Amino acid sequence: MSEYGVPVPMTDVRDGFWGSFRDTLVREAIPYQWAALNDALPETAEKSGCMRNFRIAAGLETGAFHGYPFQDSDVYKWLEGVACSLRWKPDPALEALADGAIRIIAAAQQPDGYLDTYYIIRGLDRRWTNLRDDHELYVAGHLIEAAVAYWQATGKRVLLDAAIRFAAHIDSVIGPEEGKLHGYPGHPVLEMALMRLYDAAGDERHLRLAAYFIRQRGKQPLFFEEERLRSGREDAWKGSPLGLRYYQAHAPLTEQRDAVGHAVRAMYLYSGMADVAGATGDGELAAACRRLWESAVRRRMYVTGALGSSEHGEAFTFDYDLPNDTVYGETCASVGLVFFARRMLCLEPRGEYADVMERALFNSVLSGMQLDGKRFFYVNPLEVVPEACRWDRHKSHVKPERQPWFGCACCPPNLVRLLASLEDYAAVRHGDTLYLNLYLGGTLRDGGLVLETESRYPWDGRVELRVTAAPWEERSLALRIPGWCRVWRLLLNGEEAAAECREGYALLRRRWQTGDRLNLELEMIPRWVRTDPRVREDAGKVALQRGPIVYCLEEADNGKDLHLLRRGPDPSAETRWEPDTLGGVVTVLTAGLREGSDWPEDRLYDFRDAPEARPVELKWIPYYAWANRGTGEMRVWIRE
Amino acid sequence: MSEYGVPVPMTDVRDGFWGSFRDTLVREAIPYQWAALNDALPETAEKSGCMRNFRIAAGLETGAFHGYPFQDSDVYKWLEGVACSLRWKPDPALEALADGAIRIIAAAQQPDGYLDTYYIIRGLDRRWTNLRDDHELYVAGHLIEAAVAYWQATGKRVLLDAAIRFAAHIDSVIGPEEGKLHGYPGHPVLEMALMRLYDAAGDERHLRLAAYFIRQRGKQPLFFEEERLRSGREDAWKGSPLGLRYYQAHAPLTEQRDAVGHAVRAMYLYSGMADVAGATGDGELAAACRRLWESAVRRRMYVTGALGSSEHGEAFTFDYDLPNDTVYGETCASVGLVFFARRMLCLEPRGEYADVMERALFNSVLSGMQLDGKRFFYVNPLEVVPEACRWDRHKSHVKPERQPWFGCACCPPNLVRLLASLEDYAAVRHGDTLYLNLYLGGTLRDGGLVLETESRYPWDGRVELRVTAAPWEERSLALRIPGWCRVWRLLLNGEEAAAECREGYALLRRRWQTGDRLNLELEMIPRWVRTDPRVREDAGKVALQRGPIVYCLEEADNGKDLHLLRRGPDPSAETRWEPDTLGGVVTVLTAGLREGSDWPEDRLYDFRDAPEARPVELKWIPYYAWANRGTGEMRVWIRE
Repeated sequence: MSEYGVPVPMTDVRDGFWGSFRDTLVREAIPYQWAALNDALPETAEKSGCMRNFRIAAGLETGAFHGYPFQDSDVYKWLEGVACSLRWKPDPALEALADGAIRIIAAAQQPDGYLDTYYIIRGLDRRWTNLRDDHELYVAGHLIEAAVAYWQATGKRVLLDAAIRFAAHIDSVIGPEEGKLHGYPGHPVLEMALMRLYDAAGDERHLRLAAYFIRQRGKQPLFFEEERLRSGREDAWKGSPLGLRYYQAHAPLTEQRDAVGHAVRAMYLYSGMADVAGATGDGELAAACRRLWESAVRRRMYVTGALGSSEHGEAFTFDYDLPNDTVYGETCASVGLVFFARRMLCLEPRGEYADVMERALFNSVLSGMQLDGKRFFYVNPLEVVPEACRWDRHKSHVKPERQPWFGCACCPPNLVRLLASLEDYAAVRHGDTLYLNLYLGGTLRDGGLVLETESRYPWDGRVELRVTAAPWEERSLALRIPGWCRVWRLLLNGEEAAAECREGYALLRRRWQTGDRLNLELEMIPRWVRTDPRVREDAGKVALQRGPIVYCLEEADNGKDLHLLRRGPDPSAETRWEPDTLGGVVTVLTAGLREGSDWPEDRLYDFRDAPEARPVELKWIPYYAWANRGTGEMRVWIRE
Repeated sequence: MSEYGVPVPMTDVRDGFWGSFRDTLVREAIPYQWAALNDALPETAEKSGCMRNFRIAAGLETGAFHGYPFQDSDVYKWLEGVACSLRWKPDPALEALADGAIRIIAAAQQPDGYLDTYYIIRGLDRRWTNLRDDHELYVAGHLIEAAVAYWQATGKRVLLDAAIRFAAHIDSVIGPEEGKLHGYPGHPVLEMALMRLYDAAGDERHLRLAAYFIRQRGKQPLFFEEERLRSGREDAWKGSPLGLRYYQAHAPLTEQRDAVGHAVRAMYLYSGMADVAGATGDGELAAACRRLWESAVRRRMYVTGALGSSEHGEAFTFDYDLPNDTVYGETCASVGLVFFARRMLCLEPRGEYADVMERALFNSVLSGMQLDGKRFFYVNPLEVVPEACRWDRHKSHVKPERQPWFGCACCPPNLVRLLASLEDYAAVRHGDTLYLNLYLGGTLRDGGLVLETESRYPWDGRVELRVTAAPWEERSLALRIPGWCRVWRLLLNGEEAAAECREGYALLRRRWQTGDRLNLELEMIPRWVRTDPRVREDAGKVALQRGPIVYCLEEADNGKDLHLLRRGPDPSAETRWEPDTLGGVVTVLTAGLREGSDWPEDRLYDFRDAPEARPVELKWIPYYAWANRGTGEMRVWIRE
């Protein structure tokens, strides 16, 4: 384990692929979501009530609280997204809008620093009585995340001061000292938020509180059980195998072996744990991070980077249980996996972490948003038959089309804040080595070294890096060789570079010169993916991947009854750049078979030979772009 | 369409296969269920309260009603089972026990004939206000079924008189006349019960009421909607695609195209409709029966004869939607399918009906009971991974082992009454033709013709029939050639018989002589089954069937991870009679493959070739006998 790494943000992102998504973000998604938070969407969308709750709490309006206990977090995530976007796309009107929202939020804050409209409106006497389910600490976490981001982007402190005051209030209520609650967040996020605040402002109290949450969680006597018994509440998890596993609060984190429970909570919690492990050098926590990482991504993750196999508890189930059609795969869980992956990259530079980060980002995260930025998936299935979503209640959480808004609208603004801050995921520095993890086009500046990167990633595997300024001393550059790439070469100023390969990176150490040019050429061809055979649902099946992009078949291209399609014996694949399809994508054509036209109409079962299969061409599109051409079937895995 | 046929019961059943199940029935299941109905099972079993409710209603005890509105029906089904068993296994002690129960039941009847402990105990003022959900007519139906059976078996009229009085009361409350409720049963069964009472007692009023229920159902204005609005009840089906489809009450039966909604309700309703169609010669109803039969069995039935693809509403979903692991497949639905099939055989003698009857009986019905007669399945899955039932709530209705009792205990006594009356399913007479449908060993007597049948069915395809008495006139015998049989021959007194083949039967017309001997030889070999390719869940898979028995693989014989097993290229199969296994079964050995031992531990997805597969021997056991050797995986369909 090296020392804790530091993310090195990219600036001046000029990325063709992400650029177009980020244009949509600022042009469409951010204004659309502001309308949603203010209940200004058409009737068909579910109501938010979020900004109205704040106005009521601030005394600017009267009325009842609307929504979930965590409703406040939606605007915080939106503000964080706005803050990040202002870094790369200044927009005085948007900033003024955000300032206005922040004024209302600040006006709702109580004299003691408390700031959660759910209890402010409904009565402060019950606050801090249900850490497990009432999300006060979750809301605080998102307030802090937004506040730090907004301060960093604009220099304005109104939200930051409010956040620090709320953090101080929490510190006065929860902690190891006698008379305080020995609790921790029911829905984690405050842990990583406090670490972010600590990184930004350097107040040790924030580190201490975050570390307390991580170390206290799941210790005997179990706080959530005691809290529940004190209040006389029924256990909502009675009869469920989840119980406190839902909250990852059944045992101390250092004793947990499996990624269990609510997948979003798990990812946020592990992320916060990694932050604490890194900042404190706690090897036991770092080991727990690695163990839970492996459990999550080596035994419980979908090929798209989706997490959460069951709707019950939006949760992990058990090893290798990855049903494609009843999957949960919440967008937020994949967003959380990206958070976790970056933190693991800070704990130790291993390509596997970036591979997973990329897998989630290009697939299950991106699929969360319609290409026009105005509709969103909460659940990201790998196999959809619209009729089944309608008739089979076990699939009714799976929607065959994205939705305009949600009663629980955690995903849309979460996606915005991640995509708006993508530059923060590009690189991590360990010591004097700069690890490049995402090949965004843009500028990387680190200790005198300035790199301009250029790529047509993810459609093309060629990446160019030009050194435009360099320090005197030697420095190492580590270029990630993605796990999906079998053949690659690295040229330095046109000649094969003598790179050392380690843990998924090609390392080059030298005294860099202005004008140095690195050309990384990653062979990017369609490849057939298989799973560990223990995954029941994918036995005998293959998926298609090219570079980081997982592909799928849609009814729009391949007709109904996609389950009749097989790969067939010829594995060859042809790629095609289609600039006018789905915002510009590389599609893949493969030789397939379609079964079954010869079955007699009048019998359901028969002792017949295998059905006839006629050759057909299969047309694959990137998974993230599915459900942008009307409602129809989709599937990722097909039979061989 | 010929005239409505008449079931011809077999007597003196001497059937090796069914005989042993029926021994278990009288020796174990019937006493066990009596204990259950009297809350005398060990603590671990769910409570019934059934007999206690009757004692409370009769004023013999005080207390509150326990259980569901339909709790009374459990004892009625048990009594019907007892009645049927007394026909072939007289037992004075059991009869005395039943007489005692009947006295309590009769004592609970109200002066006006009303008899439902749910309302008697909770207040009669609310009776007849919720035909849709409160099961008063369902309870009445089972009372009548039990009463007729008990009267026919013992000649005792106490229960029959109570039933006739309750029917008269219902007739005074519901019907087409002004001032009566224009309703019908929320859970059908009364329709076929009234038809049974009409057949037994000949009172036209019972036929009229049954026909009214069938013809009135689903007519505008919709009674269930009006009833609900009158009472101000919320619609429990709000947001569900089912709605009144759950009750098959969304449209007149003659306009319904698909088998929809709660599968048990559907089967009972269609059975009653077939009875009414037969008795009244109503061709439109008969056509509706055929249409709904085809929908149910040609597009919505599992290979085991299970019905109901989804737990939501215990219901049918849509065509070809037959998930094996989230299936409902209630035992009662397959019992109901046997009822429906026999009635279709009365409407028209076609082998398909008997094929389905047999499919349900030997597989999904029989699987409902443990071999020791003391535990029962409610849900009959075709694929089980115990860990998935535990962790994935979408499978938590699927139990990997049979249960001692149920809060809703409809299935156990339903199974008893069907198996105890199996002789009634053996044959049907149309005109002067006797159609043999089930090859039970026993005696058939019909109009001077007496046939002794002998078989080792379902383990052996040879059936012998000996004529021990014959009438003067010519008579036709129609021997069913099962759909699973490709090669067969029929010998009359040792020589090839010149039989006419029609609709799945071999017909022989002649003046039969005492001493005539018919030998039917049905080739009974293991065969690989495939489904209509539109069934997504079975695409690329095969199941194994031998005669009417569908087979399955169990972990006990084939190890864990059954999904790794494939049939492999060699389709050959070897059968083995194992007298000491699972009560005596024919097991099947086939050449299979087990995949996947070469996958690396550290990655979930990879661009690898198809996994290695090593040859293994697959051992198949009859599906009905699964889960009798501890908890483990099971599956019916495997990949080719």
